[in-house]
Amino acid sequence: MHNPTAAMVVIGDEILSGRTQDTNSNYLARQLTLLGIDLKEVRVVSDNEEQIMRAINDLRMKYTNVFSSGGIGPTHDDITADCIAKAFGVPIDVREDARAALAQNYENPEVELTEARLRMARIPDGAVLIDNPVSKAPGFSMENVHVMAGVPLIFKAMLAGLLPKLKTGKKLLSETVNVKRKEGDIAKVLGGIADDNPDTSIGSYPYYEGGQFGCNLVVRSPDPKRLADVTAIIRKAFTDT
Amino acid sequence: MHNPTAAMVVIGDEILSGRTQDTNSNYLARQLTLLGIDLKEVRVVSDNEEQIMRAINDLRMKYTNVFSSGGIGPTHDDITADCIAKAFGVPIDVREDARAALAQNYENPEVELTEARLRMARIPDGAVLIDNPVSKAPGFSMENVHVMAGVPLIFKAMLAGLLPKLKTGKKLLSETVNVKRKEGDIAKVLGGIADDNPDTSIGSYPYYEGGQFGCNLVVRSPDPKRLADVTAIIRKAFTDT
Repeated sequence: MHNPTAAMVVIGDEILSGRTQDTNSNYLARQLTLLGIDLKEVRVVSDNEEQIMRAINDLRMKYTNVFSSGGIGPTHDDITADCIAKAFGVPIDVREDARAALAQNYENPEVELTEARLRMARIPDGAVLIDNPVSKAPGFSMENVHVMAGVPLIFKAMLAGLLPKLKTGKKLLSETVNVKRKEGDIAKVLGGIADDNPDTSIGSYPYYEGGQFGCNLVVRSPDPKRLADVTAIIRKAFTDT
Repeated sequence: MHNPTAAMVVIGDEILSGRTQDTNSNYLARQLTLLGIDLKEVRVVSDNEEQIMRAINDLRMKYTNVFSSGGIGPTHDDITADCIAKAFGVPIDVREDARAALAQNYENPEVELTEARLRMARIPDGAVLIDNPVSKAPGFSMENVHVMAGVPLIFKAMLAGLLPKLKTGKKLLSETVNVKRKEGDIAKVLGGIADDNPDTSIGSYPYYEGGQFGCNLVVRSPDPKRLADVTAIIRKAFTDT
C-alpha cells in the first residue's frame, strides 16, 4: 500500500519576482508529512492562464491531490478559479452558497457585495467549497484539486478544514543525527549503510555554519523498530558518544 | 526585444518533507529581477532520477536559463550531476580541472581526496565549471543549465560568479502603493486602471495583519516615466494623501 501523493502549485508573480518569500509550500509540506501524504513536487508559476493550466493539468493526472495557493481574490490579476474551470472544461459562475458565505462579511450585503467582490463567489461547476473562517471568501475542491488563498493566515485556516477530509497514509517517521564532519569524510561509509538498508531512506543535508562544515543525517521509515536500528548504526559509525 | 527568461529546479527531499524551507529560489528571484532576467517558473522535486530529468528537460527547452540547487555533494543521495549527463545524453567522469579545484581543500590531496569526495569532481562532458569560493567543489553549466549547490551560502557564492556571464535584459522597475483597504473595495477601479494601461503590469497583493486587511499594489514597467505616471494614478485613486 503506497501513501497518497500530492503536488502543490504556488500561483503569483510576486513570488517569482522575489518580492514575497513563499512560506505556504513549507507549511503544507510539514502538515502532509504528519499525515502520511507524500508531497512529490511543487511548482511556482506566474499569474498567467497558460502557465496555471499547464501546471494544474500536468499534476492532477499524476498525483492523488493537488493543492494551489494564490489568485482567488477580487482583483483583475486573480484568475485561478477561471483557469481551473477551463482546465476541467466546466462552466463557472457566481454560486449561491459561496455568495452567502461572502455576505457574512457585510452588514449590508446588497450594497457592499460589489461586482468585484462577487468575483470571489464564482465557483467552477461541480466544485465543493472550502471554508474560509478568516475572511469568508471560500476556496474550493474541484475533484482532486484544492484551490486556496495565498495569504498565509487564510491558507492555513482553509487547510485546517480541508485536511481532515483527505485520505491519509502511513506516517513516515524520522530521526536526525547531527555529525560535525564534512560529508566527504563520511560519504563512503554512509553509502554502505544506505545500500545495506534499502527499506529505509537515508538523506544527508550538509550545512556550513560559523566556519564549520557539518551535516544532518536523516533516517526515514514508517517502521519504528527499523528507524531505531538504522539510526543506531549511523550514530555508532559517526559520533563519538 | 524580450528579456531572457529563466526557471529554477530546487532538488531535495528535505524541502518536500518540510524539514528545510527553501530560500535559494527567493534569493535567485531577487537577483534575476535586478538583471532583467524574467524568472518564469520554479519546480521543487525530490532526489529522484526520473523527477530531476523530467524537470530539467521540460524547462531547458522552454527558457533561456535553468538554474538548479542541490544534490551535488559527495553522498549517495547526490545524483544531480548524473541526471544532467543523462538528460543531455553525454558521458560523465572525474575531470582534471574539477579535481584540481577540490584538491585545494586538502593538505594531502592524495590521501584526503577520497573516492567519495571525487564524486564531486565528476562533470558531464562539455560542461563549464562554476567556481565555488566557499568549499571548492565546483558547480557547472551544461549549455543553458546551471547546476549549483543547495547550501545557501555556497549557492549565493556560485551565483555571484555565474550571473555576470549571462545575457541580461531590461530591468523591470517597480513602485508599491500600500492601501489600507480591502481588495474588494478597490478591485473595480483598479481593474479599470489596469485595462487603461496595458503596457504596465499591475499586481494586487493582499495581506492581513493585526486584524486589518490591506493590499500592496505593485506597478511594474521598464519605462520610468510610465511607471511614475501609473503609480500617480493609483495613488490618487486610493490614498488620501
